[in-house]
Amino acid sequence: MDDDKVRMTVGEVRELAETVLGRLGLAEPQVNAVAATIAAGERDGCTAHGLYRLLVCAHTIRAGKVNPDAEPRIHDPAPGVVRIDCQGGYAQIGFDAGRPLINDKARRCGIAALAINNCIHFAALWPEVEALARDGLVAFAFTPSHAWVAPAGGTAPLFGTNPIAFGWPRPGPHPFVFDFATSATARGEIELHRREGRRIPLGWGLDPDGDPTTDAAEALAGSMLTFGGHKGSALAAMVELIAGPLIGDMTSAESLAADGGAGASPLGGELIIAIDPEGFLGGAAAGHLTRAEQLFDGITGQGARLPSERRYQARERSLAEGVEVHAGLLKEIEALLDGTLTA
Amino acid sequence: MDDDKVRMTVGEVRELAETVLGRLGLAEPQVNAVAATIAAGERDGCTAHGLYRLLVCAHTIRAGKVNPDAEPRIHDPAPGVVRIDCQGGYAQIGFDAGRPLINDKARRCGIAALAINNCIHFAALWPEVEALARDGLVAFAFTPSHAWVAPAGGTAPLFGTNPIAFGWPRPGPHPFVFDFATSATARGEIELHRREGRRIPLGWGLDPDGDPTTDAAEALAGSMLTFGGHKGSALAAMVELIAGPLIGDMTSAESLAADGGAGASPLGGELIIAIDPEGFLGGAAAGHLTRAEQLFDGITGQGARLPSERRYQARERSLAEGVEVHAGLLKEIEALLDGTLTA
Repeated sequence: MDDDKVRMTVGEVRELAETVLGRLGLAEPQVNAVAATIAAGERDGCTAHGLYRLLVCAHTIRAGKVNPDAEPRIHDPAPGVVRIDCQGGYAQIGFDAGRPLINDKARRCGIAALAINNCIHFAALWPEVEALARDGLVAFAFTPSHAWVAPAGGTAPLFGTNPIAFGWPRPGPHPFVFDFATSATARGEIELHRREGRRIPLGWGLDPDGDPTTDAAEALAGSMLTFGGHKGSALAAMVELIAGPLIGDMTSAESLAADGGAGASPLGGELIIAIDPEGFLGGAAAGHLTRAEQLFDGITGQGARLPSERRYQARERSLAEGVEVHAGLLKEIEALLDGTLTA
Repeated sequence: MDDDKVRMTVGEVRELAETVLGRLGLAEPQVNAVAATIAAGERDGCTAHGLYRLLVCAHTIRAGKVNPDAEPRIHDPAPGVVRIDCQGGYAQIGFDAGRPLINDKARRCGIAALAINNCIHFAALWPEVEALARDGLVAFAFTPSHAWVAPAGGTAPLFGTNPIAFGWPRPGPHPFVFDFATSATARGEIELHRREGRRIPLGWGLDPDGDPTTDAAEALAGSMLTFGGHKGSALAAMVELIAGPLIGDMTSAESLAADGGAGASPLGGELIIAIDPEGFLGGAAAGHLTRAEQLFDGITGQGARLPSERRYQARERSLAEGVEVHAGLLKEIEALLDGTLTA
């Protein structure tokens, strides 16, 4: 093990996250729900959603952007729709409250939608679509963020990094899951290039005049770009619409305006759609889902990777051997609490 | 007007398509439904789905791949789901039969799904999501095709060109609509490069050994690639799953196998999802949809184009001035019928 890394079990990661979030003032159920996502991020090698995220939570909570005592309120507007108002708390409490309800509605109607409203979001969608796929549902999730990304052919930020996630139930231990930003890269990746003085590839960003740039600082001051040109841009617009106005919540531009320069996590909504395969096919569904396995074999059989493969490999390793966390990050987390963490 | 082009009204295009499809042996309702799509394609400047498509229809019908007398059968398996079995006819008759039913179900449940099964498809999804958006619904459509496209990191064809389409109702004359292939480009575009002896850009295809190529013929013999690297590849896999096994229908690999070398249009299914904005928001929906207009203003206000803008401009021009059709194409269409068209 490197000198500057500390090995922790996934359980220890979760306990640390719970302790810190509690000391930051969050009440149950937010402590549990957010700590679970942070532990899942660290476990799955998604370090941007791991313990590092405690620094972002601390900043967001201290900026007064989170309702620490939020309790989700359930609205039941239609047979196939449920809305959870998070009351300004983290999105995870909305998902926890909504999961059994969207399960029930998807099984009764064949398809259902869950809108999570008025929540602070840190855009880790894969735990949610994975959970629904483990429930036997096909699931989609979408959320806007802050307006950082220019539309294709444009010159100024309008869209968020607007991730799209998808989960598909499989007979084996792991569902098929993907979760990606519709921006060309993560904002944190550009930030990392800036800190390290490295240039970014063309296609990641525009300078404040709207011209292509390889200067990370210029791109952060200007606009990020979507992946896949006009197609990625169309998808980013779709996410704004369906996880914004469609569910009565903010666009990324509105979220950034509401932030008022605080630099906190995005505020807004999330849309989840879930489909019960038996809604289409009844008892024949299981046979057709087995047929889908041929598609996965067709991908892996030619040496290509399934989107979730690296995450599941990291998970197995982490559960067996624990995770390695930078000692510097642990010091920063401790400093958040003015040294009281180990007191 | 160029010497080699013939000006026709959109009505004349539709009449020509109806005449040819009827002579090719299609019965009602397929003649009407397919001619409507062909006229819409020609009108909107999507010439690959315009009169040219009659040549593809003729080939597919004469190869015995279409049931000319198909009449859609309706299945009603769940409150939020409808399935239309096209009985081997063109997908358009499934959409025509399913449109009022998905409207009704989306309004009752808030969200609904329409599976179109056992159909011949020519992958023009925008007329369908546009129609549903004009009905006031938010709509998504997906269909696989033939296995021509390699997964990211792979070397051999597995996915179809697998388009994704989206429609959003707007107060003005035109809904927000996009419809794009998850392949980097259309197969016809690579075919065009081959015929003209032009090289294709890197990123469009792989040769039969699975190596990147700029030779159009090699890419056609090998694999096409998805747009947007592993993200586009993940979306292509999603389309295979949700418009294939989820609805009890074929993947692109199964469709190509069923084709048996005939070179006919893909056979399989299509998934449409529709959401009623009032299902989430009741009477408040209209206000939030108006708020979405700010997003469109934010796109066009910085000089970027909405995805559907060129199509709507072509439409207005075509409806006012008619369309210009290559005289050579009209001769080919006439030759299909052994000169009996003008007899």
